[in-house]
Amino acid sequence: MIKAVVFDAYGTLYDVHSIVRKCEKIYPGKGYQISQVWRQKQLEYSWLRSLMDRYQDFWSLTGDALSYALDELNLQYSKGTIEDILNEYLYLDLYPEVVESLQAFRPWKLSILSNGSPKMLKELAANTNLDKHMDAIISVDSLKTYKPKANVYNLAVENLGVNKNEILFVSSNGWDVAGSKSFGFTVGWINRLNKPVERLGIEPNYIVSNLAELANKVKNK
Amino acid sequence: MIKAVVFDAYGTLYDVHSIVRKCEKIYPGKGYQISQVWRQKQLEYSWLRSLMDRYQDFWSLTGDALSYALDELNLQYSKGTIEDILNEYLYLDLYPEVVESLQAFRPWKLSILSNGSPKMLKELAANTNLDKHMDAIISVDSLKTYKPKANVYNLAVENLGVNKNEILFVSSNGWDVAGSKSFGFTVGWINRLNKPVERLGIEPNYIVSNLAELANKVKNK
Repeated sequence: MIKAVVFDAYGTLYDVHSIVRKCEKIYPGKGYQISQVWRQKQLEYSWLRSLMDRYQDFWSLTGDALSYALDELNLQYSKGTIEDILNEYLYLDLYPEVVESLQAFRPWKLSILSNGSPKMLKELAANTNLDKHMDAIISVDSLKTYKPKANVYNLAVENLGVNKNEILFVSSNGWDVAGSKSFGFTVGWINRLNKPVERLGIEPNYIVSNLAELANKVKNK
Repeated sequence: MIKAVVFDAYGTLYDVHSIVRKCEKIYPGKGYQISQVWRQKQLEYSWLRSLMDRYQDFWSLTGDALSYALDELNLQYSKGTIEDILNEYLYLDLYPEVVESLQAFRPWKLSILSNGSPKMLKELAANTNLDKHMDAIISVDSLKTYKPKANVYNLAVENLGVNKNEILFVSSNGWDVAGSKSFGFTVGWINRLNKPVERLGIEPNYIVSNLAELANKVKNK
């Protein structure tokens, strides 16, 4: 029944907290805290801008979230500092099991559906050689809104030419899991941080700790 | 030009963290942490459910956010524990300057516009005698969605019979400040926690540390 697998990018394939290294170089001892506030604000801004109909692309939004984080932590910065740190989003670390696990999901079509802007997704995938493994890299940008709006998930249906009940959607983000399941996908939650299921009235089909485990479970079902 | 003042309730007039006392009795040493996670999840769930078109009233949503918080902190609870703690939402503390400051906003019409369900707002206002000071208490519930959706703010316009540019909206929540300003209100941010302005592309008309200061600034303008 599954014909295509659609992956979230940030947090699922890529470790957004790999930017801690860069932050530590500039602000010793503060890298972890910056990363936590930055990621939280990045998500909040994507939700709030969607609700307010004030879309801004994910690159600028992520830069604004970083500025907020540095302000909140009372850290000094210039425009150059923001650009320098933000640039790390083009070189995030893949989680260690990703490349090998992707093979296990073949022969299904593989793609990414992400909040990232087309340019930042394209560069990140190229810099990490992930582009060679993907049949499509889909950005929300054409709709000028963000996950978990239903029309965003429908972009995968349109791009891949399969029905929504033929798509396995994979995310490590609990709210993305809820949104994609609510839309109608079969959903696997990569619960990398060992968190409770978000109480949003809907639960994933699979709960696993990494991609390899998911491939195994889905194939042996 | 101002004809009515519309207040957010939770965090602005009422201290949502006054529930720490109750939590401390049940989970000694954990009250602050519970309150932080609980509030964060409550906000996230309101945004996410609006984006997913899966409205649930604020009483149930707040209970779910509490369950999540206790799960995340690995604390044991029964259905009774949830009800017991949740009930504190009907007896939240008013911030100390509120009642006196409301007088300073007269003779303008005064009202509340809140995510809270009609029942929880009515009981909270009655239990704290705030109902005597308000011309209207408006809940988002009739629209089955939450702030910062624009149509929610329009409820105040409809209920009060004044134009949106004649309303001063008052909130301590940075995202609510952005949403209400984006809608078209004149906005005062009660920056109770001394945070940076949220980077959502829009800024409040007034930034103050409490309601008394706002009344003073607006009247002397």
